[in-house]
Amino acid sequence: MRSQAIAPPPTALSIDANRLYDALDALGRVGAYDDPYTGLRGVCRLALTAADGAGRAHVVAEMRSAGLAVSVDRIGNVFARRPGREDDLAPVMIGSHIDSVATAGRFDGCLGVLGGLEVVRTLNDAGYATKRPIVVAFFTEEEGARFGTDMLGSAVATGRIGLADAYAMRDATGLSVRDELAAIGFLGERDERLEPPHAYLECHVEQGPVLRASGLDLGVVTGVQAICWHEVTIVGKAAHAGTTPMSLRADAGVAAARINLKLRDMVSSGRFGAELRATMGAIAPHPNLVNVVPGRVVCTVDVRNPDDAILERAEAEIVAHYGEVARLEGVTITHRRTARTPFVPFSSRVRERIAAAAKARGLSSAPIVSGAGHDAQELSRLCPAGMIFVPGEHDGISHNPRELSTEAQCRDGVNVLLDTLLSLADE
Amino acid sequence: MRSQAIAPPPTALSIDANRLYDALDALGRVGAYDDPYTGLRGVCRLALTAADGAGRAHVVAEMRSAGLAVSVDRIGNVFARRPGREDDLAPVMIGSHIDSVATAGRFDGCLGVLGGLEVVRTLNDAGYATKRPIVVAFFTEEEGARFGTDMLGSAVATGRIGLADAYAMRDATGLSVRDELAAIGFLGERDERLEPPHAYLECHVEQGPVLRASGLDLGVVTGVQAICWHEVTIVGKAAHAGTTPMSLRADAGVAAARINLKLRDMVSSGRFGAELRATMGAIAPHPNLVNVVPGRVVCTVDVRNPDDAILERAEAEIVAHYGEVARLEGVTITHRRTARTPFVPFSSRVRERIAAAAKARGLSSAPIVSGAGHDAQELSRLCPAGMIFVPGEHDGISHNPRELSTEAQCRDGVNVLLDTLLSLADE
Repeated sequence: MRSQAIAPPPTALSIDANRLYDALDALGRVGAYDDPYTGLRGVCRLALTAADGAGRAHVVAEMRSAGLAVSVDRIGNVFARRPGREDDLAPVMIGSHIDSVATAGRFDGCLGVLGGLEVVRTLNDAGYATKRPIVVAFFTEEEGARFGTDMLGSAVATGRIGLADAYAMRDATGLSVRDELAAIGFLGERDERLEPPHAYLECHVEQGPVLRASGLDLGVVTGVQAICWHEVTIVGKAAHAGTTPMSLRADAGVAAARINLKLRDMVSSGRFGAELRATMGAIAPHPNLVNVVPGRVVCTVDVRNPDDAILERAEAEIVAHYGEVARLEGVTITHRRTARTPFVPFSSRVRERIAAAAKARGLSSAPIVSGAGHDAQELSRLCPAGMIFVPGEHDGISHNPRELSTEAQCRDGVNVLLDTLLSLADE
Repeated sequence: MRSQAIAPPPTALSIDANRLYDALDALGRVGAYDDPYTGLRGVCRLALTAADGAGRAHVVAEMRSAGLAVSVDRIGNVFARRPGREDDLAPVMIGSHIDSVATAGRFDGCLGVLGGLEVVRTLNDAGYATKRPIVVAFFTEEEGARFGTDMLGSAVATGRIGLADAYAMRDATGLSVRDELAAIGFLGERDERLEPPHAYLECHVEQGPVLRASGLDLGVVTGVQAICWHEVTIVGKAAHAGTTPMSLRADAGVAAARINLKLRDMVSSGRFGAELRATMGAIAPHPNLVNVVPGRVVCTVDVRNPDDAILERAEAEIVAHYGEVARLEGVTITHRRTARTPFVPFSSRVRERIAAAAKARGLSSAPIVSGAGHDAQELSRLCPAGMIFVPGEHDGISHNPRELSTEAQCRDGVNVLLDTLLSLADE
């Protein structure tokens, strides 16, 4: 009878939604700024800045107040451990990140970390000890917004990026990851290579409109779609806009425009199915003056699809198009692949647990592919990993102070996180 | 016999091409920099900087060494006067500018000023006094590259822009025209409103490929084409490139691309004749990140034509297109007209004199429309004005250290400047 007395039924425990939402609000005040575009309070906690340091100190204090033992590894990842009844077993890890882009809201990443902490507090309040230990973690520079490589901390912890390479990365002003870790007091001593957890769970805002538009309470993430990035350099000939006949022009801006509309056409045509995403996000012309034909443009291409084969076919068509535009416009076009990751599937066992937990609570859910990268995709190399997506208001806008998931939406996601954790931590 | 003895026949005098080319080289060393893109020595004498001050001091010293009386007006325009036999008559003025863009060669503007000085030296060497006085002038901030308004000095001298408005203009760092004039010692005392000269002549590099491609020695400028500039602001919706379905996007970058290709199509179609020029020179997306759909783009449109009616029709079609793109892409598009000048015709009498002088020297010439603005268009409000264009190598590239007119090209232009001056100054 002992195990029945200790292990509560899945629906017996629920988190304190109010406490969770207050915690999100409190962390959202660290590194806050008044956003001029939205008129809202935004968050700017770029990784390893003083604001990030303050955010880390705040969360570490909360972790300690929840009775957790905190350790920091050599890349600044933070792990807060709650003992298990069989404390030598591999822990179940709940994680995400608290660093942000420069114009963020208060949910991206923080929901996963503070959600994990809320799960621990709920277990503490119930006096319940899981069989396996629980670790609540946050990882360094998930956004890549300061040092240029996203999922940096979790990539180092799981061996994709070496510690020396990570240390040597520099921000736009030349400051290094290592020096900045030391400056905020988070250059830890724990081995950066993580021992495989039993499982890894991450609750995150969707950062897109699908769940909200479908009226679903939750998304069970099937994996992270395949991603391909190009940095495209177009070299034409700078020329006077008033004096140069069109026949003598080699306009790098027109070439970039053709590529941008090609991306749009590839998606609209449906030739690559319904899930192709293709975006020209950055465009930098030179000399960028009203009366000079652009002699040089550096622009970016971001293409994604859940199916690796489709992405490969799309990329080949785009590269062929570069050649056509170069011939047509008399410019040279070179490209550099700045990212290429295949579809990363999440564990079917973890997905089933999440879906079952949602169903048991009467919440609607559906499988969903993540359009963005997350720490969970790095952890999936070490252990069974899974993600719970929470819907967002305003078409799921993210990386923007308008980012908003309601208290009820956050509550549902973290309750399912709790239930899924229990099912895994008592194995 | 007196007038025959004093007035030489048109071909009796010729300038010293070597002296002229050396003078261009010497001025080109003031404000020089090593250009990383071309590997050449470039010129950076942005108006009213210390480099411009040094260039001004250099040219003023040359003017004085040629025996000219130098005066400076309240907007910093510099006038160097050579007396005439009938010194109360209105002078013939030869002018241009010596300020430059940030990445210039050594011919733009300088050829007109140093060419004027070479004409004076040639007359000095011959001991010839013209009937009317001669004034060699250079005007402040012709480029508009520092304070944002081109032909600033000549516009003030001819009444298009008031002195107080000009004084109050500021550069990107907040420094004012008045303070910067004082700082380099060129806040003069002469009345800024110029007494109408008898005629105004300007010899300038073409800054385009037409003359060189046609094998012509010179261009007789018929006028400055009509110009229309728009600053276009496109507001869409910033969104995550990985998560946002295309149907929910409002991509300001795609909208800008459509406008750019529309400009190209309007020119290529020939529907506006062969002389329409249309350029999107500047494109500034926000937030300009690889993985974010641009939520906002500010871009520019530059449209030119020698025919005012055609330009008007082209502008109307572009504005209508803004509306079509806004509907198609779900963005808002607003535009601000940042420039609109009609075709400025030059004096037919001056043009005939230039053409006749070229013919008498056995030089080939043809009428040509100026694609760029020049001080001569401002002076044309006060008096008959005309311009001589000199061909440029490398497709007439300008605003670039590769800008190059050969010694022979410069010689031919300034000899015709000399002959035209004589024909007007002895009237």
